[in-house]
Amino acid sequence: MREVAIIGIGITKFGVLWDKSLRDLAVEASIEAINDAKIDHIDSIYIGNYTSGTFIEQEHLAALIADYLGMNPIPSTKIENACASGGVAFKMGFLEVASGSSDIVLVLGVEKMTEVLTPRASYSLSLACDREYEGMNGITFPGLFALVAKRYMYEFGLTRKQLSLVPVKNHKNASKNLKAHFQNLITVEDVENSPLVADPLRLYDCSPVSDGAAAVILMPLELAKNYKNTKPIKISGIGQASDTISIYQRDSLVTFNATIKAAEKAYKMANKEPKDIDIIEVHDCFSIAEICAIEDLGFFPKGKGGEAVEAGLTEIEGKIPVNPSGGLKGKGHPVGATGVAQIVSIVEQLRGEAKENQVKNAKIGLTQNIGGSGSTAIVTILEVI
Amino acid sequence: MREVAIIGIGITKFGVLWDKSLRDLAVEASIEAINDAKIDHIDSIYIGNYTSGTFIEQEHLAALIADYLGMNPIPSTKIENACASGGVAFKMGFLEVASGSSDIVLVLGVEKMTEVLTPRASYSLSLACDREYEGMNGITFPGLFALVAKRYMYEFGLTRKQLSLVPVKNHKNASKNLKAHFQNLITVEDVENSPLVADPLRLYDCSPVSDGAAAVILMPLELAKNYKNTKPIKISGIGQASDTISIYQRDSLVTFNATIKAAEKAYKMANKEPKDIDIIEVHDCFSIAEICAIEDLGFFPKGKGGEAVEAGLTEIEGKIPVNPSGGLKGKGHPVGATGVAQIVSIVEQLRGEAKENQVKNAKIGLTQNIGGSGSTAIVTILEVI
Repeated sequence: MREVAIIGIGITKFGVLWDKSLRDLAVEASIEAINDAKIDHIDSIYIGNYTSGTFIEQEHLAALIADYLGMNPIPSTKIENACASGGVAFKMGFLEVASGSSDIVLVLGVEKMTEVLTPRASYSLSLACDREYEGMNGITFPGLFALVAKRYMYEFGLTRKQLSLVPVKNHKNASKNLKAHFQNLITVEDVENSPLVADPLRLYDCSPVSDGAAAVILMPLELAKNYKNTKPIKISGIGQASDTISIYQRDSLVTFNATIKAAEKAYKMANKEPKDIDIIEVHDCFSIAEICAIEDLGFFPKGKGGEAVEAGLTEIEGKIPVNPSGGLKGKGHPVGATGVAQIVSIVEQLRGEAKENQVKNAKIGLTQNIGGSGSTAIVTILEVI
Repeated sequence: MREVAIIGIGITKFGVLWDKSLRDLAVEASIEAINDAKIDHIDSIYIGNYTSGTFIEQEHLAALIADYLGMNPIPSTKIENACASGGVAFKMGFLEVASGSSDIVLVLGVEKMTEVLTPRASYSLSLACDREYEGMNGITFPGLFALVAKRYMYEFGLTRKQLSLVPVKNHKNASKNLKAHFQNLITVEDVENSPLVADPLRLYDCSPVSDGAAAVILMPLELAKNYKNTKPIKISGIGQASDTISIYQRDSLVTFNATIKAAEKAYKMANKEPKDIDIIEVHDCFSIAEICAIEDLGFFPKGKGGEAVEAGLTEIEGKIPVNPSGGLKGKGHPVGATGVAQIVSIVEQLRGEAKENQVKNAKIGLTQNIGGSGSTAIVTILEVI
């Protein structure tokens, strides 16, 4: 396999963007990435999108977006792996370049979620769980992750304050990210006074329904080294894994086996360990998910994630900065865009272009993107060459 | 890139299968392919499916099917490229093996379409056209392909009889295929007396709404040569291309540029020309599409496809047998399964296992799978080693 680098990034503002269609968002992020990479052609396109069929009544985005980018007849392919669609699309782009089949690939993640009312958005999102054994019984994702949080509190004595500190940190980071959905600071009291969604999860434990798109350009590392782009970022490791579609089938509610297995593969491929990683973006769809993620990725022992957050170890200036971009909670969670947006955020950091959120001396970064209740997980390790 | 072979195939009965869920169909085809390949493990899964979100209110099939196959934690990925989802999923599996990232990959195509009423099925299918410029104006795919047929008749004098002979042939071939949706023979008169759907297309010009699944197992060719499977089939060429999402944007309504471009790539990669090909499976979603396909793939000059059909050149014993399996019209068209099912049919032929439909001395076969109104096209060339 050839080694692969990221040579361009683009991302739209995330949020409730009623003046922009999915087509607008897809084109905006892609053109930004193409301009950033300073390339004059593309060989292939991969698109991560979750469920445009139910959100905007449009499928076949692969062809639609190739067309709206003016890129016919180059091949274009759409990946759907629930909330991990963007991360898995990135892996497909990586494989195409690594295989030697193409030299320059555009990977785009996009979701347009705010054209429907909230119940419809909840319904669309619930299609990523097991509809016959979970969805049909009325459970949606806040309920599923509430079960995780309840069990985690029971097993490890996680406090409400520790949990609340996750969104507090992520809003603080997002407040300095101009592309983020939210720029407002929140307090522990704000989280604890926000409406109860599914006990113990409150509104501010839940990532928002957002519109947005993110894009990256990939190229073989050897070509990238001699390319006019100033700072190619190497893709050192990618691991993907699956777990049961329903959480009731698992031995543990609080350990996400797909994350563990995906991380093992990514660490092995990159020849890295958690202690080598300077910065991570994880999938905090709900605050409890960030705590489980930093444990399952090997940064803290199981059951100790809450204490780590409380001790400030996951802050930008902490031992391992977690979600310096603001994460899904602060930056927003346009589902199909999220995995690619995480990559964009890490590339900004490794290039030293993260402005007020810059982590000092960030040389190696990691992303963790999950689909459903962790039924798909994909972990990527990026580094400065 | 490593060369890649197909070492196992599986396919369910296609049809209105009210006693089988999508899960059942996916598992049945996959297990048949795994048993056929005589393998004891899989490294990765790719799934072609169009719109399970709107057909059965279930997304995240990648995780669901890995789970129902008992294959956690191996990675599983879903591809959506409208009716070309299966063909493009096959390409992703090819890339993963070719890149060296995995040795044994399962590619599955599946669609469950008959749990909804016909208007809902038409709606779901229409999500593959441009919803804002085509769908919102009330046009669905029979209407789009009727425009193609009307224009083709105007430009080249195609007769109603020539068009009718396409489904007549495909039903004849399907009548000897036990897995086909239809086993009944039809006549030119039957086609011409069937209800008008969108002038000039009648009911028997249109492929049916079907349930079904098909699967293949891929392995590096070098490993496959020494493997216990009796007859590995080599993947010689794959080409994918895109065209405008809407047909009104094109210079010609009767030439499918994505098919032409995809075929150019596949022929070049395989170092083959149309005259080298012994047998083809093409995307006859509507009878006019088969005529355009055999021209765009280079088997007959543009405008001469109808005469070729009338002269019997596309029959099993003809110059170039087209859709010996029965095609989408006779075998059925469970959308996401179709591209993989075409591959399965060609492998059966190249192995000499196609029973009553066997084409004599078939050594090299080609498939053409399109999405939407030809907005995605993927062409694959397979050969006996």
